[in-house]
Amino acid sequence: MKTKLLSLKTEAISLLQSRGVSLDEIVDCVYFLQQEYHQNLDKKILMESVLSVLDKREVQFALMTAIELDIMTEKKRFENKNLEAVIARDEGLFGTDEVLAYGICNLYGSIALTNFGFIDKQKFGVVARLNEEGKKGIKCHTFLDDMVGAIAAAAASRFAHSL
Amino acid sequence: MKTKLLSLKTEAISLLQSRGVSLDEIVDCVYFLQQEYHQNLDKKILMESVLSVLDKREVQFALMTAIELDIMTEKKRFENKNLEAVIARDEGLFGTDEVLAYGICNLYGSIALTNFGFIDKQKFGVVARLNEEGKKGIKCHTFLDDMVGAIAAAAASRFAHSL
Amino acid sequence: MKTKLLSLKTEAISLLQSRGVSLDEIVDCVYFLQQEYHQNLDKKILMESVLSVLDKREVQFALMTAIELDIMTEKKRFENKNLEAVIARDEGLFGTDEVLAYGICNLYGSIALTNFGFIDKQKFGVVARLNEEGKKGIKCHTFLDDMVGAIAAAAASRFAHSL
Amino acid sequence: MKTKLLSLKTEAISLLQSRGVSLDEIVDCVYFLQQEYHQNLDKKILMESVLSVLDKREVQFALMTAIELDIMTEKKRFENKNLEAVIARDEGLFGTDEVLAYGICNLYGSIALTNFGFIDKQKFGVVARLNEEGKKGIKCHTFLDDMVGAIAAAAASRFAHSL
Repeated sequence: MKTKLLSLKTEAISLLQSRGVSLDEIVDCVYFLQQEYHQNLDKKILMESVLSVLDKREVQFALMTAIELDIMTEKKRFENKNLEAVIARDEGLFGTDEVLAYGICNLYGSIALTNFGFIDKQKFGVVARLNEEGKKGIKCHTFLDDMVGAIAAAAASRFAHSL
Repeated sequence: MKTKLLSLKTEAISLLQSRGVSLDEIVDCVYFLQQEYHQNLDKKILMESVLSVLDKREVQFALMTAIELDIMTEKKRFENKNLEAVIARDEGLFGTDEVLAYGICNLYGSIALTNFGFIDKQKFGVVARLNEEGKKGIKCHTFLDDMVGAIAAAAASRFAHSL
Repeated sequence: MKTKLLSLKTEAISLLQSRGVSLDEIVDCVYFLQQEYHQNLDKKILMESVLSVLDKREVQFALMTAIELDIMTEKKRFENKNLEAVIARDEGLFGTDEVLAYGICNLYGSIALTNFGFIDKQKFGVVARLNEEGKKGIKCHTFLDDMVGAIAAAAASRFAHSL
Repeated sequence: MKTKLLSLKTEAISLLQSRGVSLDEIVDCVYFLQQEYHQNLDKKILMESVLSVLDKREVQFALMTAIELDIMTEKKRFENKNLEAVIARDEGLFGTDEVLAYGICNLYGSIALTNFGFIDKQKFGVVARLNEEGKKGIKCHTFLDDMVGAIAAAAASRFAHSL
């Protein structure tokens, strides 16, 4: 069972990389979210938090489902073409992408939720890049940008509670 | 705009029907959830609550996304075959189906959430039927059974608050 | 029953005012949250959204409970003096204040949640003022600042979905 | 810091006991929630899960706040007498008690939430006893019964994910 869990984590990290997101970029987001509260933040410790978030099964499955939906939108495999168009346009009132993101944030409590709201509106680093790439219409990152924001926000909350 | 909203609602109802779920069956679930608290429950009034739940954009989009994921699993269109297999087996620890369901229940407050938990474990009527059909492996209802439970739970909460 | 609901709403508004928060200040927060998305925002329409949020029973009860906890902290009526001290200091890791706030935001979907996270971190207008007054230690606004942010975020989401 | 965390945990357990709830009774609820899925469930392992849930700061603070509200209701210390009466009667539409409970369940994912909904409606063991004592009007357990249900549901989810 542990082997299987390990491989789900490895798979999640590979999936992120295959969609152009490195763990270092996620760590940069955690740093952005936590820097005002701590001096001399050590990125290695923040990386530990990111890896720990990616260790949770519910995080892995939410991330995989989110990326699958982005890919299927890009490949135009949807049965429901209206829905495909809504996701492709990343419509502001769609909301299901954030629902999946809250599935991650909720596991890390209220600090994760407020941090997610902040990075989702403020857009920083990789979250901003994914969002822009998506808006250009070459890639679909409607779900992924929220997932990355949620993982960073969750890692920031885990770090804050660990001190 | 209102026209568009109306058509999303009509589309949501059609989608439910195309997956074998009638509004009357959902009303029966609401009745099951509310009968112990009220005498002479009128199914017409419960139907009004179900239709009102289906009027919300976030409900419509969550439902459409959920059904799309079920269909893509049936048609084996997933890029990620591990994930497809997890969804096809309706694994107990998957959890993303319930996350989408909470996206609906949360809109109707705490009564909706407890009612969802109850019908999800107790399984009644159409929720039980969908779950059994899914377990037999002919259809994939991994997401849909939770959606139907969530819509019924949300309608029950709306009804309880309206009295 | 409707009379009772009306009076709960009036009571909620009076309570806000008795704690130094006017509805106009909440409308200003909604304006702050929505201004980048809309030209010529009409504050009267935003006020309508704020009043509609305050019409929900779960919002009224969450707000009343939150304010009660602030007052009891000020009056040092807690049985549990450790908890009273934690609330009086508005400790960053307390989290129960945000949990009550999410009870409001969840009713208005994902836009409400992200807006809450943003205003909670960014602090604007009355949210900033309440927070500062609390930090000075004369008043306890540990719960109220989150409630006000949540009501504004919920009203912003309701407004965005109504267009 | 660890010392402080440890003492918050000890305090949480003492508080539960002072309100008449033993850890063994909570373990019995976890057993009730998990028995259909596992043969030869070991109560010692379930106790480990309960203790781990009580180790989280957000759980400790939610529990302390909940018990404080129950005690203040019993001692009639509320400023807001309408709210005090609503809590004393444990009104079905109050909802803030469940909001605090979800603050715990959310940390343990979707299995915790469905289990909470189930035990909240089905009422078992100590949850039923607390509820009955509250209805008789001698004690106020409006918040505590939901907290105990939430801790049991969270422990059940933690256990299910640990296998």
